[in-house]
Amino acid sequence: MYKDYQEFTKLNLKLDMSRGKPSPEQLDLALPLLNEAGISDQIKSSGTDCRNYGIQLGLPEVREFFASLLEVPKNQIVVDGSSSLALMHDVIAFALLYGTPGNSSWRSDKPISFLCPVPGYDRHFSILEAFGIKMINVPLLEDGPDMDVVESLVAKDDSIKGMWCVPKYSNPTGAVYSEEVVNRLASMNVAADDFRIFWDDAYHFHHLTEERIAIPNIIDICQAAGNSDRAIVFASTSKMTFAGSGLAMLASSVANVDWWQKCVSVRTIGPDKLNQLRHLLFFQNSVSVDSLMDQHRAILKPKFDIVDSVFEEYLGKIEGVSWSKPLGGYFIDLITPPGLAKRTIELAKNAGIILTPAGATFPYGLDPEDKHIRIAPSYPSLEEIKLAAEGVSLSLLQAIEEK
Amino acid sequence: MYKDYQEFTKLNLKLDMSRGKPSPEQLDLALPLLNEAGISDQIKSSGTDCRNYGIQLGLPEVREFFASLLEVPKNQIVVDGSSSLALMHDVIAFALLYGTPGNSSWRSDKPISFLCPVPGYDRHFSILEAFGIKMINVPLLEDGPDMDVVESLVAKDDSIKGMWCVPKYSNPTGAVYSEEVVNRLASMNVAADDFRIFWDDAYHFHHLTEERIAIPNIIDICQAAGNSDRAIVFASTSKMTFAGSGLAMLASSVANVDWWQKCVSVRTIGPDKLNQLRHLLFFQNSVSVDSLMDQHRAILKPKFDIVDSVFEEYLGKIEGVSWSKPLGGYFIDLITPPGLAKRTIELAKNAGIILTPAGATFPYGLDPEDKHIRIAPSYPSLEEIKLAAEGVSLSLLQAIEEK
Repeated sequence: MYKDYQEFTKLNLKLDMSRGKPSPEQLDLALPLLNEAGISDQIKSSGTDCRNYGIQLGLPEVREFFASLLEVPKNQIVVDGSSSLALMHDVIAFALLYGTPGNSSWRSDKPISFLCPVPGYDRHFSILEAFGIKMINVPLLEDGPDMDVVESLVAKDDSIKGMWCVPKYSNPTGAVYSEEVVNRLASMNVAADDFRIFWDDAYHFHHLTEERIAIPNIIDICQAAGNSDRAIVFASTSKMTFAGSGLAMLASSVANVDWWQKCVSVRTIGPDKLNQLRHLLFFQNSVSVDSLMDQHRAILKPKFDIVDSVFEEYLGKIEGVSWSKPLGGYFIDLITPPGLAKRTIELAKNAGIILTPAGATFPYGLDPEDKHIRIAPSYPSLEEIKLAAEGVSLSLLQAIEEK
Repeated sequence: MYKDYQEFTKLNLKLDMSRGKPSPEQLDLALPLLNEAGISDQIKSSGTDCRNYGIQLGLPEVREFFASLLEVPKNQIVVDGSSSLALMHDVIAFALLYGTPGNSSWRSDKPISFLCPVPGYDRHFSILEAFGIKMINVPLLEDGPDMDVVESLVAKDDSIKGMWCVPKYSNPTGAVYSEEVVNRLASMNVAADDFRIFWDDAYHFHHLTEERIAIPNIIDICQAAGNSDRAIVFASTSKMTFAGSGLAMLASSVANVDWWQKCVSVRTIGPDKLNQLRHLLFFQNSVSVDSLMDQHRAILKPKFDIVDSVFEEYLGKIEGVSWSKPLGGYFIDLITPPGLAKRTIELAKNAGIILTPAGATFPYGLDPEDKHIRIAPSYPSLEEIKLAAEGVSLSLLQAIEEK
């Protein structure tokens, strides 16, 4: 244990923990994906030469594979590109430019807004900020967004057109939506006909414990509630194979998928089907997907554990300090006494540790109490993580002392 | 030579010549691209692990490679995704949503319009139609758009925000823009400050003769004319490696590239860099690119020749009938006597030959004189092409006879 912050800064570290990037060891797990042995004999899928144009919604076998994994009907899923963020962006852009099925453009009349459970994912907020869509904070509790707040807002305000949800192992707190929350989201009364839930299922397969937590399928539940077009589910293999070179998918009602196809058919002649085929050959089946994710867990879990134990050692008895203990996902939310997150991040930076900027997990970068620090333990090595957790702890202690 | 249309229909053909798809033989030329041997040792580029997030504008080496091929500065090119159509779509979408650098959104005040040299590429027109952008036809001559018409329109009408150009081996006529046309486009007076030329250099490397026709670099010429932000160049390897799984690129002024980066950084965390690395390893250098395209030419040229000779045989002496003899690209424009294109395409369909729908090469699908038929000889085999050309000829003769 280091004596204090000053002693720690003498290490002259250079660590970047600002983003939830997979580590090199995790990326190595997907190296067989690069071994194309055999793919040239299998470039035809369903009679389609995957090297040529077409197949707008993705290869049928690949759609079927991910439909089965995500438990959605195979005709209600699209596999397109490598970035689920791009799919979310484009859904919003299409709604702004064209409107949703049966509704006018989101920008046709008055300013629109989105509900943003906080703390949340900074890139979700960046899209809305860029498009000039007003963001309304909603507290994220341990079992999902505060539904009393959500219900009362959407019931009366038809300018609220959407809501972000990271339903499992939420970024950054690790919150897992309860069955009750999912049911209430699906069935609540909403003033805007074209209200959409952006269900970013980013960490569906990214468990940190042996329990593979499953939450109710939002698409089925929305349909049962008579709101079948309400939810759009997004997922990707970015943190299963290669970040940036994986597959991204979107699932929703038949009407929403038809709408998506109509919008996107103007944009491209079809996705990269060879990468889809490559992934199908690599993933094989759900058992091997589980096995792959177990290997990811084996790499990630010790990193989360070391952060937790260092925080416990340095911060466990400090009043007003707490942190999340996620059962999956990529982040830990460190909560400081009010007004100290920014200063702690600054001190950590001076000690050579780059953290996600203060406020990043809130719309407009404004954490109203300045107390959330997002810790991303995935990329650095175990030794580096330990050092970083120590440095963050010492920085926080120093910030408390300064105050 | 077949006696007449009736005799030909007895063949019960099923041929699709509606799109400019590469043939299986062409796709085979890029099969080594699928052989990833070695790529796993080279996944680091400029110190970046290509399997992870980041590098928004594309791998530096890959940008440099295509900058050299397209003769643009390496800091003014973006390599992103597999579809140049998507890049064009997104530039228009971003201009509608955000506005261009220093200008307000294209949809902020009054309706906007684009100049469309006709006949042209149907997917260009589909984007504008989807976005509700008015399309104004401009005659495409053998050396490019009729510049007298273009200059007089853009000089007085500030609702004209853009113009499509396929400067080399134009789709579908094969027109090659002259130096004079390029100079006039770059230097003409334009009423709208945010006017953009969408320079779709789709067939830059796709020569059908031994002469590798080069046309002046629009970016340099615009800059020299004091209009450096005017032109945005698009290209892709869709018809060099794999259609749908290639690389797409955009090049323009520094200001436009910065603007692009700002818009696109909200959408994704970076492109598929592994596919970029794969292409770099496959392409190697400009000499091997030339050699690859020579092999494409060797496959394509006989297909264009057989269409030309069949047309000559059946239609050479028919009044009012002509067709383009392109020096590159993917299409032949067959011109019928006025009012007969639609009927000819219908008759061909009844004989088992699918052609691009009548009018497709015009905005809104409206060929005012109903006389253009786009012939796409790339995909079918040589034997099939010959049959198809015969069938189209006989269909046209039948249509003339009916009239």
